Amino acid sequence: MFEKVLIANRGEIALRIHRACREMGIRTVAVHSTADSDAMHVRLADEAVCIGPPPSRLSYLNIPAILSAATITGADAIHPGIGFLSENAQFAGMVEEHGFTFIGPAPEHIRLMGDKVAAKDAARSLNIPVVPGSDGAVTNDADAMDLGERIGYPILVKAAAGGGGKGMKVANSRAEMSEALSLARSEAKANFGNDAVYMEKYLDHPRHIEIQILADAHGNVVHLGERDCSLQRRHQKVLEEAPSPALNAAQRQKVGEIATSAMRRLGYRSAGTIEFLFQDGEFYFIEMNTRLQVEHPVTEMITGIDLVREQIRVATGAPLSFRQEDITFTGHAIECRINAENPDTFAPSPGRVTDYHAPGGLGVRVDSALYSGYRVPQYYDSLIAKLIVHGTSRNECLMRLRRALEEFVIGGIDTSIPLHRKLVGATDFINGDYDIRWLEKFVAPKD
Amino acid sequence: MFEKVLIANRGEIALRIHRACREMGIRTVAVHSTADSDAMHVRLADEAVCIGPPPSRLSYLNIPAILSAATITGADAIHPGIGFLSENAQFAGMVEEHGFTFIGPAPEHIRLMGDKVAAKDAARSLNIPVVPGSDGAVTNDADAMDLGERIGYPILVKAAAGGGGKGMKVANSRAEMSEALSLARSEAKANFGNDAVYMEKYLDHPRHIEIQILADAHGNVVHLGERDCSLQRRHQKVLEEAPSPALNAAQRQKVGEIATSAMRRLGYRSAGTIEFLFQDGEFYFIEMNTRLQVEHPVTEMITGIDLVREQIRVATGAPLSFRQEDITFTGHAIECRINAENPDTFAPSPGRVTDYHAPGGLGVRVDSALYSGYRVPQYYDSLIAKLIVHGTSRNECLMRLRRALEEFVIGGIDTSIPLHRKLVGATDFINGDYDIRWLEKFVAPKD
Repeated sequence: MFEKVLIANRGEIALRIHRACREMGIRTVAVHSTADSDAMHVRLADEAVCIGPPPSRLSYLNIPAILSAATITGADAIHPGIGFLSENAQFAGMVEEHGFTFIGPAPEHIRLMGDKVAAKDAARSLNIPVVPGSDGAVTNDADAMDLGERIGYPILVKAAAGGGGKGMKVANSRAEMSEALSLARSEAKANFGNDAVYMEKYLDHPRHIEIQILADAHGNVVHLGERDCSLQRRHQKVLEEAPSPALNAAQRQKVGEIATSAMRRLGYRSAGTIEFLFQDGEFYFIEMNTRLQVEHPVTEMITGIDLVREQIRVATGAPLSFRQEDITFTGHAIECRINAENPDTFAPSPGRVTDYHAPGGLGVRVDSALYSGYRVPQYYDSLIAKLIVHGTSRNECLMRLRRALEEFVIGGIDTSIPLHRKLVGATDFINGDYDIRWLEKFVAPKD
Repeated sequence: MFEKVLIANRGEIALRIHRACREMGIRTVAVHSTADSDAMHVRLADEAVCIGPPPSRLSYLNIPAILSAATITGADAIHPGIGFLSENAQFAGMVEEHGFTFIGPAPEHIRLMGDKVAAKDAARSLNIPVVPGSDGAVTNDADAMDLGERIGYPILVKAAAGGGGKGMKVANSRAEMSEALSLARSEAKANFGNDAVYMEKYLDHPRHIEIQILADAHGNVVHLGERDCSLQRRHQKVLEEAPSPALNAAQRQKVGEIATSAMRRLGYRSAGTIEFLFQDGEFYFIEMNTRLQVEHPVTEMITGIDLVREQIRVATGAPLSFRQEDITFTGHAIECRINAENPDTFAPSPGRVTDYHAPGGLGVRVDSALYSGYRVPQYYDSLIAKLIVHGTSRNECLMRLRRALEEFVIGGIDTSIPLHRKLVGATDFINGDYDIRWLEKFVAPKD
């Protein structure tokens, strides 16, 4: 087992990883920017190293500074967390070249899944169903329009190197294709330095269903069921639940088997998530995230499995401590992402937290690095807390979530708590009757 | 189902009951003393009624004021919580006479179990094993000494109306009997207004094992396994765990069956706990608590059953929602009682909480009505928070408890958190190797 792990991240996910390490008896090294000297992950870690000023390019994305911090503190391994360098294949490779263990998958799998076109090709060859679309990037507009006719409109144009909704455009007819292609290409170029785009069938009422995978270095692969992350605004997940209210047992088993057999063939190792659109009983591959997900706690709540612990264990070369048949699903879990932002305008709201009180009691978990007096910096992602609630049924979970949201106090800054309070009262949400576009309409200004 | 429940209590247990009601869609009425106007249970309840000043005799024990509050708010039922009026048979009876439902057992069962001599007689007649001892109160010292010879020393002399360790004396030999009897009688008289005492075999290395019972009004009785509450100081529980590290599956099943068949015969209804001493593989009845216990969360964590919700459900006349064979035990749970007291001297430490930050993350539950800025009043029990931790194994649970205790911040007052931090590092505790007298030695001043 590792003796010391460097956590190359910040905020609640750095704290999450610190907690897993502590519970395994592993010492922790925090790295931080000058803006994060007072952050909780810094306060709780055994050692802390400042790796530079904001913005992230100069600190949390500063590979030489992070590798130096690992060297001077004598860390055995580096956990990249979520975001930042977690899906940077070059970083993963350099970590290993410098003699540290990268707590994550092999660099070639990060690279493969980081390129959306290559990922889709790989999915197809691994028998993961994909949305019908272009065979790779589209370079010729006329060919693109012919293909559009064959697939049928609406068509989605997406950046090959994209993510987070950047470089995505919908064309509802042949007439709109040309503009969609050109807009997507220029956004792709601006955001990712690469203007390659591809096209696919646009599903008009899909849900976002993703499958959590865990795999060790010995060829053992299990899935931990699905998460329903359909509640999104501008392609950002807002609330996630497990199991999905839309899946039946046969569909769950089918998509779980698709995911595990694909990962077995790929030789994948570590935690990973295969994301699907799900419409009319069919699954369509979106992408694979070769890292932990923000919403991993809902899976932990219904399986009782600590995903970060397992991620660390398999990184040491240990086999998975359970088989597929050992995994049971109990009850229902929902996670609310709480952001430092105005709940109506969604404008970021950094600043000093004058009052912080997290809800407690049965079935309530809070993952947050906030504390009273902490100043939320302006430089980073607005996620400041995750409220995760478990209940024996979806209804019990919803009722518990409602009361936990009532108790949650974060003063001094705006947060999305009021949005979540509205959400838990919405009939469609209560009925589980929503797709990936439902929330956008729900939060749209009424007049 | 009830529409409105009055919670005749304060502190974390009032909040616990409020949470269960909220999650069931039941409106809540808080009652409070003038010292508790700013208490969290008052802030969160739908309605709040001030029932008098401290001390408790004038407010939380003020039956007419509580019944009036129930009448004016139109409550359907009254939950007595823990302590205060929760084991007052007269109160339970008056609640029902005034047309409210008492969320608890029938008054005659409260009365029966509240009298330690009658309770022991009842236990014997219900085939619950008891510690060999006097057949009722001992009035004649010579008879007592004869009986002492038959049982064998050491012998414990206890107040019939006692509790909390008051009126208890050990006689190690015939020579010490006379003094033990007279001291126990005078303490009993002073504390309970009744000098009746009884005698029993004194066990020199027992564990405190208690069985959680749930029963409905239709004769269905289940047990939810045991809790090990052997870590006590001056007969006050400090830390509890489930399952007990000392019990095997056969012993668990045996004592569970003893408890359920006894309660079925008694016609008991609601939640209840049968407490045993356990030594050398044998169980000996101590007493039965006809109410919720402070340590009920550890049972909730390993069974996934919300005990307060079930207590409320069966009070409506609903049958239990599960049978014995539906109850499964998963993992291990530990509760630390966090008191407002000096961790070395155990002197109470009321006052203003200047900083409050509860630990979070996977497997961590906090039940507390504290908040930053709250003033802990001097008038009440020193319990201010319960930290409950769950893990898949006892070892995982211990590691998680250790890191949760590291994260827990309560500033401005002394608390027992440092004691718990010491405890989780103690080899005997880690090995599960302790009896009901172990903690007393552990906390004794060293010189």
